[in-house]
This record gives sequence, structure tokens and C-alpha cells, in this order.
Amino acid sequence: MTTHLIALAQRTRSAQRHLARAPATRRDAALEHLARLLVEREPEILAANAEDVEAGAQGGLAAPLLSRLKLTPGKLATLRQGISALSDDPVGRPLRRTELDRGLVLTQVRSPIGVLLIIFESRPDAVIQIGSLAIRSGNGVILKGGSEAMRSNAVLVMCLRDALAAAELDPESVQGVADRAAVAELLALDACIDLVIPRGSGALVRSIQERTRIPVLGHAEGICTLYIDAAADPEMATRLAVDGKCDYPAACNATETILVHRDFLPHLPAVGDALISAGVEVRADPDCLFKVPGAVQACAADGRTEYGALVVAMRAVDSLDEAITCIHRDGSAHTDAIVTDDAAAAERFLTAVDSASVFVNASTRFADGYRYGLGAEVGISTGRIHARGPVGVEGLMTTRWLLRGTGQGAGEYSRGDRVFLHRVLPL
Amino acid sequence: MTTHLIALAQRTRSAQRHLARAPATRRDAALEHLARLLVEREPEILAANAEDVEAGAQGGLAAPLLSRLKLTPGKLATLRQGISALSDDPVGRPLRRTELDRGLVLTQVRSPIGVLLIIFESRPDAVIQIGSLAIRSGNGVILKGGSEAMRSNAVLVMCLRDALAAAELDPESVQGVADRAAVAELLALDACIDLVIPRGSGALVRSIQERTRIPVLGHAEGICTLYIDAAADPEMATRLAVDGKCDYPAACNATETILVHRDFLPHLPAVGDALISAGVEVRADPDCLFKVPGAVQACAADGRTEYGALVVAMRAVDSLDEAITCIHRDGSAHTDAIVTDDAAAAERFLTAVDSASVFVNASTRFADGYRYGLGAEVGISTGRIHARGPVGVEGLMTTRWLLRGTGQGAGEYSRGDRVFLHRVLPL
Repeated sequence: MTTHLIALAQRTRSAQRHLARAPATRRDAALEHLARLLVEREPEILAANAEDVEAGAQGGLAAPLLSRLKLTPGKLATLRQGISALSDDPVGRPLRRTELDRGLVLTQVRSPIGVLLIIFESRPDAVIQIGSLAIRSGNGVILKGGSEAMRSNAVLVMCLRDALAAAELDPESVQGVADRAAVAELLALDACIDLVIPRGSGALVRSIQERTRIPVLGHAEGICTLYIDAAADPEMATRLAVDGKCDYPAACNATETILVHRDFLPHLPAVGDALISAGVEVRADPDCLFKVPGAVQACAADGRTEYGALVVAMRAVDSLDEAITCIHRDGSAHTDAIVTDDAAAAERFLTAVDSASVFVNASTRFADGYRYGLGAEVGISTGRIHARGPVGVEGLMTTRWLLRGTGQGAGEYSRGDRVFLHRVLPL
Repeated sequence: MTTHLIALAQRTRSAQRHLARAPATRRDAALEHLARLLVEREPEILAANAEDVEAGAQGGLAAPLLSRLKLTPGKLATLRQGISALSDDPVGRPLRRTELDRGLVLTQVRSPIGVLLIIFESRPDAVIQIGSLAIRSGNGVILKGGSEAMRSNAVLVMCLRDALAAAELDPESVQGVADRAAVAELLALDACIDLVIPRGSGALVRSIQERTRIPVLGHAEGICTLYIDAAADPEMATRLAVDGKCDYPAACNATETILVHRDFLPHLPAVGDALISAGVEVRADPDCLFKVPGAVQACAADGRTEYGALVVAMRAVDSLDEAITCIHRDGSAHTDAIVTDDAAAAERFLTAVDSASVFVNASTRFADGYRYGLGAEVGISTGRIHARGPVGVEGLMTTRWLLRGTGQGAGEYSRGDRVFLHRVLPL
């Protein structure tokens, strides 16, 4: 363990405590300075980014990654809009108040989690998105970006730190780390780092989970299912299958498996045609294969695979119950949808399917913090602890319990000299 | 890995899904049956317990453990009262509703976490307390009790399972495991078990955390501090020091360290006398030692030790800020209190101390789910993720996002054909 990284994490913790106890107006000021710096330093940011992009192109970085790497005046404007949307300060906000007894009032308040370690790839926009969220929520953050965006990330981290300093906050609450070897060492610092958020593939998330005792917020994988019920409207089923699979196939909320009630099979050709016309490879079981000309035969792994591409598994089921069993057995509890005109079937599906997001007559692609109206999205969690599904700024908060007394000891109550009131107070 | 335990965990998961989707009235019925069975089977329960107590006494179990092990008609009556207090069913309760667009409504609802593994010692009461909480919250539970309570636990687990069966619920959602070797194997089943709750010492909790990838809810340790400010009322300071230390010294919320502002030192003899009269060993730094006749000299570990006994560390500080620094450096972020008549100092302490519970003019002993009015207490968490401080039934719940649409695809919104409303709806 390099003492350099321990010292860095400790400085982050100490600066974070300062950030968290500062009044909201200081965090406001830091975010205002940040938006201003993104304007003032635009030439510098774009120049550093151009060097990254050039190095990436020379190093043979694939076109989609290059386009994610490249910053533009438009992307910087979007980042500034994102910052101005963070006007609502969550630190210290009361969640519940209880009068335990006269002169003894308990308040549960929102508090920052502490120090976050964010591991992300290619997109330098993430530095500003996550950094501004961390400032708003009173968290310290160690940002480990990809080496391909090294120069861009360094300039953007400096904007964050200068914005903190300009607001008389300690810039050490935001740290940038470029060295890949640092990750393993940071993952061992469970005394200094409270939460790891890997933004990337399921494989990245799993590999991080296996290497740390620090809690990890992320999605293991997204094996999302669309179940076409017996009572599905064929036109709607077609629309949702195509949107779920084709709107953005690389997303974790893309549909990977289509289960089809046997009674719907006569209508399946239209669904299959639409998918195949959209360029989708349909991997079908024998019953579906027969109904979808152009489909290929499914193998054992189909139906429990995250393709992340224009490929979909298709399988017939005998009943709603069988569909639910398949989803629990083969899915990843990320997002699963039913298409049906049968209200009772819809409600049974909503009640029984134990996934982070469960939809009726809507595309699996809606599972997203922005679409849910959560504001800035921290990520999507397939974990069942702390935060589940699309996670907004709430996922970066914990709580503290504040008790304001007038000299009470607990013995008075255990002896029965006094009795608790437990009266709920307005916030 | 014995396939027996994998099969047991899988049966628990499957039965839990059944429990979670059943209407609340079934869980009501199971709890009513349980209360009745505790009456009907009282002779059988007390007979099994008497065997455990006799074996424990012969095996040399210490008197406090024997008294925790022993069940009485009074303890059983308390358990029945606890069950009847669980009338409020949390499963499926809506937490927020948002109209994303016309005909597209998102609801976030409470859902059970899934399968819990509870590891506890001596007290067989815990079987009924935790088992009834699990039934109420729709969670499956694997109960691993101590071998000293083996016979009592077996009879009580059977009451839980029979109560489930009588309510036409699958009894497999509650499992009892007696074999100590099973723990290591269960801790490896991260695909079947969602949360581990060790109820016991900090050492037990830490050893569990080191042996599993499953999230663990528990308190690492309780190094709770009382800071006596310059502006403290001496009489109140004395009362809170004695209550915090002596009310129940073995509890995790007992006061272990007393920090004293230098300006309070003239009043310290009264505090010290009261502690020493109550049988407390006071381990003082040189400044405090001088003021507390009968105190002993502190060594390096004092001030960062959970004594769990009638021992307290005492140290002088120059300022409120130094006290806060000491608490962050040496405490365990469990519960820390200030005693002061200075309202500004009180608020600064509440804002700056980053512990799960932070008190003004109240004993650290108040950090407790019952005292906080949370109803049944699952445990106290010193973790910063999911639940923090005293944890009620909410700590056994996660959420799901339910979306009810009318055929919407996400592409309509990304293309700009439709715009999100994001209108907050009443619950």
C-alpha cells in the first residue's frame, strides 16, 4: 500500500467533513463558480480533450468510444445545465421528527454517505456530473477515470477543485486519480472510503465487488424480459418489443428476452417480422421458431444472456405463472415488463415479479433516473440493499439521528419514572 | 458445500416470494396463529427451555447467560404483546407516485429485501421477535441460534412454521439451523441470501463481515462519547455521565469516553465522585486525574476502547473543535453526546459530529429502536449504507418501481415526439 493513497483518502475524508458541515450557500457558491469556470476555461478544456481524442484515434480507439470521449461546446453547455438543475440542497434535511417526551425531540436528517470512489470509463463528462453531485450532496469523491481521457479529466477535476476553493471550501474533497494501479489499493481502504460506484459493464461491477469489502452500488447485469401475455394487443406488443430491443441495444435496460404466451403465438409473426426488419437476430425456441421466419434456433444460454446488441431470445410459455418463474430463474431482477390488456394479469405480474423495476405496457427502456424524474442519475442498482433501480442523489445520502434533550437519562424511563410519548411532529 | 444447505436456502427464497405476494390478511392471520400457539404450547416451550437451562448450568454457563437463556411465562407474554404490535403491514406500501406522462404512472413501493440470515446467541426470545418481524415484512429468514438454546429454538421455530401453514402460507419461509458449521456455508450463498444480521458482539459482527460477500447489517462496535462542554450544567453533566455509563454498561450505547472542556475542570470532582460511587473505574488523563480522587491513570488504548463494563476513559480537551476531532478519530460513529447550556455549541456539535446518533443534553443510552419509537428493533447499524443507527422494520425493506403504461416506447421521448410531465401525484 502506498502511503500516498492513504494520505489522499484521509485528506478527502477530512475535507468532506468540512464540506458537509458548511452551510448550503457555500455549496451553492461552489456550483455557481463551477458553471462559470466551465465557460471561462472552455478553450483549455477542449484543447486537452483534443489531445486525448487524437491519442485515442492514433491508439486505435473504436469510433463509438472516440465519440464518447470527445467533448464539444454543446456537451459543455449540457453539463452547465445539469449543474444549474442541482439547486435543491439535501444535506441536513429533516425526514422525521418525534417528540419522545416533553423536552426530548428526535429528528432524523439526511447526511452525506462520506467518501465515494467512482470508477468510470471514457466519458469525461462524468467528472463534472459526478463531481457536482458530490458537492451538492456534501460527499467527498475520488474520481478514477479511464486513461484514454486522462488529460480532459485532469482539467475538469481542476475546475471542480478551483470552484470549491473559490467558495472557501476545501478543494481536497474532490480528487482525481489517473493511475490504473491505484484502484486495487483504493479498494482496500475500507476505513476511508464508504461507497464504490463503478460506472460501466456488468463485468467491471462484478470484478470490483470481488475485490473489496466496501459496499458497491451498481448493476451486476441487465437481463430484461418482455412477457407478451395471452391478452396482449399485437400492435402494442410489436411496438414494445422493437423499442425495448432497438432503442439503444447496448443499454442495461434493453430487452434481452421475449417470453410469449402460447395463446399469442398466432400473432407472433408480426412481432418477429418487425424485429427482423429492424435488424435484430431472433434466437427462438422451437414453438416460436415456427412462427418467425428468419429466426435462428436458440441454444441453452439464450434467455439468460445480456447481449447488449441487436440479438433477442424468444421463448413460448404456457401461462403467466410460468413467465414469472422464468423471469425469477433466468433474469437479473433489473427490469421486466408485461404487455397485456388483462388488468388482473397486469396486477398479478406487478405483485409477483420481484425485480427492481416492473412494468405494464411500457418498454423496459424506461428504467432510467432521468425518465423516472429523479434528476441526475447516480447509476442503476440491481442490489437490494440501500438503493434499488435507478438511483438519484438520494442514493448518495444516509441519515443521522439528532436528539435534543434537557438532561434526560435513560434510567428514568426503564425504571418507569417517566413514560415515552412518541408523538409524531410535523417537519 | 453441502447441497442440503443450498436446497434449504432455495426453498426459503421460493417460499419468501409466496409470502411477499400474499395479501396482508394472510400475514395478519399467521401472526394471530403464532400468538395463539405461544399460549397453547407454553408447557412444551418451557419444558424444552428447562432442558436447555439445565444443560447450560451443568456445562458451566455463566449466570447472566443462563438468565438470558431462561424463558418464563412473563417473557412469553411480552413476546405475544410484541407480535400484536406488528399490525402495520409494510409490503407494497407506496412511497412516491409520479405521472411521467399521460397514461404512464410510476409508483415506488416498499418490498421485502428477500432472504435474511440472522445469527444470534443465547436469547431464544429472538426467534419469535425476528421471526414475527420477518413474516410481517414478507421476508424469508434463516435463524441460526446458539447451541445452548438448541431445544428452545427448535420448538419456537416450529411455532413459526405451523403458524405460517395455518394461514395457508409456505412454512419454508422460516428455517432454523442449529449446526455451527452451517454458518460458514450459508455465508457463501450470496445468490440465495440477501442480508446477514449478526446480533451479538462487535467481534462477532466483524468476523462475519470478513467471511462473506453478502451485505451485513450490524454495529461494528459502540465507542460512545459524552463531551462535557465549558457551558455544561454540572448537575446535568453528572447525571448524564452516570446514566450513560451505569444504566447498562454491557450495551453498545453505553458511554465509554468522557471528554471534558478545560473550563469545566473545576466542576469535574462532582462528576468523578458520582461515577466512582457508582462503582465505575475512571481512567483519566493527567489533567482529569488531578481532579478525580480515586481515578487511575489512562493508558494509550483508553479513549478508543469499548469496555462494555463499569470502566470509563476521561480526558480534557481545549475546545469544542478538539472534542469533535477526538470523536471522529477515536470513536466508532455510533452515538455521541454533548452536555451544554450554550445553544450555539449544541448546534455546532449536532452539525459537525458525523455519527449515526448525535445528542444534546441526553444520555447516549437513548440510541435504541424502542426509545426512538421505531417499534420492534432489528438492530443498531454503524454502517453508512442502507440503514444507520437504530433500525426498525424499515431496515428489512427495499423498494420496487412499478410503471403502469398504455403502450409507450422510450424512443418517442428520446426523439422528442413526446415530453415527460414528471408530475408528483398524491399517494
